[in-house]
Amino acid sequence: MLHFELLATDPHSHARRARLTLNHGVVETPIFMPVGTYGTVKGVMPRSLAEMGAQIILGNTFHLWMRPGLDVVKGFGGLHAFEQWHKPILTDSGGFQVWSLGAMRKITEEGVHFASPVNGDKLFLSPEVSMQIQTALNSDIVMQLDECTPYETAGVPTSEDEARKSMQMSLRWARRSQEEFARLANPNALFGIVQGGMYEHLREESLGALAAMDFPGYAIGGVSVGEPKEEMLRIMAHTPHRLPAHKPRYLMGVGTPEDLVQGVASGVDMFDCVMPTRNARNGTLFTRYGDLKIRNARHREDHQPLDPSCTCHTCAGSAGVSWNDGGRGGFSRAYLHHLDRCGEMLGPMLASIHNLHYYLNLMQEVRDALQAGSFAALRAQFQADRARGV
Amino acid sequence: MLHFELLATDPHSHARRARLTLNHGVVETPIFMPVGTYGTVKGVMPRSLAEMGAQIILGNTFHLWMRPGLDVVKGFGGLHAFEQWHKPILTDSGGFQVWSLGAMRKITEEGVHFASPVNGDKLFLSPEVSMQIQTALNSDIVMQLDECTPYETAGVPTSEDEARKSMQMSLRWARRSQEEFARLANPNALFGIVQGGMYEHLREESLGALAAMDFPGYAIGGVSVGEPKEEMLRIMAHTPHRLPAHKPRYLMGVGTPEDLVQGVASGVDMFDCVMPTRNARNGTLFTRYGDLKIRNARHREDHQPLDPSCTCHTCAGSAGVSWNDGGRGGFSRAYLHHLDRCGEMLGPMLASIHNLHYYLNLMQEVRDALQAGSFAALRAQFQADRARGV
Repeated sequence: MLHFELLATDPHSHARRARLTLNHGVVETPIFMPVGTYGTVKGVMPRSLAEMGAQIILGNTFHLWMRPGLDVVKGFGGLHAFEQWHKPILTDSGGFQVWSLGAMRKITEEGVHFASPVNGDKLFLSPEVSMQIQTALNSDIVMQLDECTPYETAGVPTSEDEARKSMQMSLRWARRSQEEFARLANPNALFGIVQGGMYEHLREESLGALAAMDFPGYAIGGVSVGEPKEEMLRIMAHTPHRLPAHKPRYLMGVGTPEDLVQGVASGVDMFDCVMPTRNARNGTLFTRYGDLKIRNARHREDHQPLDPSCTCHTCAGSAGVSWNDGGRGGFSRAYLHHLDRCGEMLGPMLASIHNLHYYLNLMQEVRDALQAGSFAALRAQFQADRARGV
Repeated sequence: MLHFELLATDPHSHARRARLTLNHGVVETPIFMPVGTYGTVKGVMPRSLAEMGAQIILGNTFHLWMRPGLDVVKGFGGLHAFEQWHKPILTDSGGFQVWSLGAMRKITEEGVHFASPVNGDKLFLSPEVSMQIQTALNSDIVMQLDECTPYETAGVPTSEDEARKSMQMSLRWARRSQEEFARLANPNALFGIVQGGMYEHLREESLGALAAMDFPGYAIGGVSVGEPKEEMLRIMAHTPHRLPAHKPRYLMGVGTPEDLVQGVASGVDMFDCVMPTRNARNGTLFTRYGDLKIRNARHREDHQPLDPSCTCHTCAGSAGVSWNDGGRGGFSRAYLHHLDRCGEMLGPMLASIHNLHYYLNLMQEVRDALQAGSFAALRAQFQADRARGV
């Protein structure tokens, strides 16, 4: 089930404000989706995710297939009860991870043969198998199996001919995914994935064929796969607004806060990225006024929270009143610097909460601006603030 | 400030129910105190500690002196604001950690010379320095500097003569600690520490001299330092009830759940131990019916929480209704097994919450039983339950 309502559009860009209704709840877009690879958003409790306003999280089909294994998740009736997250979940197809195995896998028309990186078992992933796994996971949004066209192989960029062949196989896999999804009577929503590498006309061929198949939603794949930033931005400017207007649009694996705001302007509704949690574990924190390295000695005695305008638990404590609004209930930069220096778990825990809250709150501000008709002003303010520096 | 009220005593043992009023709040005893070495109880957010009923936590003077350094904590007016824990804190003297440096330190009558394990700086810890540091930390309960008499050195048990000399130096350091604490006009409460090794008559000599100095509270040190369990139990049976009745009694560094219940029966009011958090990180979970190794394959598909009678966030979710009472809001053994197998941070996070809650709840049950006059029945039930097995 997926019901899509377009609530507002921006006259100066392709940005739009919409609402998805899925089997486990409602998702207000534009939205950022925290990544929960192994059935957990790294370092964050489900209750913290709910408190910071997360509406939908990701799970990785490939990783969950390997561990804990499908039999275990099936016993719980799906991923929601297993991981104690009762709002919507999106799962990927497993294709990206299999593709990342490199020499350990062999891709054919039928599917991908590979050896399990956990125990060496010989395994096979096909569009049909991916649909069967995602049906067992009972994710609200299911992704077709696609071949993620690489940007380059051993330093040589993918040629137009290679990108076309890869894109065309993804289209055939889209059809097989759709047929298997229907055969399984999966009650959730299946998204098609646009491929075509860095070639605009191939992207158009892909999205035209997928649109004809009438998926309830569409993703843009094959970006954020090692290409230069300007290549990603070129595809992001080209493809999203060409997708069907009355279907959700998901840009896979992107990106920085700047990428998200630019992506919204390009017509994207949904984003996911490991950056907020991965950077948190490495001590890089996102703030309204730019990024902050907590390891830096300048923070040693700083009593301010990471972001004085932030209302997350890390910056504002349980009361949720920001430092700028007079709240003094949060953790200081000095304390977070100390935790990082001592290698204490609480450091990445608090940093992950802050970074995810930053991304989710940024999308909340974007939604509010779209609703109020002030998206252009928000973009200008966002860029000025981020450029100011911490 | 320390106000002590004796609320109930058990006619069949030395157990007692009491209440301490300290500068940052009230502590109901018998109590277990979670250990927050570097200004954080490892893997647990302060709000979680508060939710599970923690009344007082520990900080380690030596570690906090090294990192973040006293200047940083002083800038916050003490440890409470720095670590965002606003209830009582107890700090140790730093002696135990300095003593643990082995060849890197030299103990004299004046104090201990040692090299910083963080940066090699030559440092000096004396009773006076310890009081100065703990005054900067502003902990509610301050411990005298003592010499922790070892159980054995290079395999040779400490002789009576060595134990006497060590204990007598600790008495002289107790006097110096008390004088410096008074000179600093520290508004908190200073505890004396009974030493004497494994020799009962030396313990009596120590506690007699300390009692004459009229400390507001007393600790028993030099246990849980590598001695055989029966030696610890012998001292635990001997010393606590001989301490002044109208002062709190703190058994340092002890122990298992069984040790705690036995300690209460022996007249102890306060305990601390790293066991609940350390074991949590190693996948050993405490439950009403014995200990559980989450790594064991038998838990792979088990839908039960760690302890079906437990109301902690891990076992019962945000609703706090245990599995036995019909709650289904907690995390399963299968999920915790999976997190452990994947090395996910959420595993130790949830395990630490559970283990600390187990210890705190056990002490709550002990307090309730002492109040109700049913401590003997509780001990019998506790032993039967724990022996039953998970």
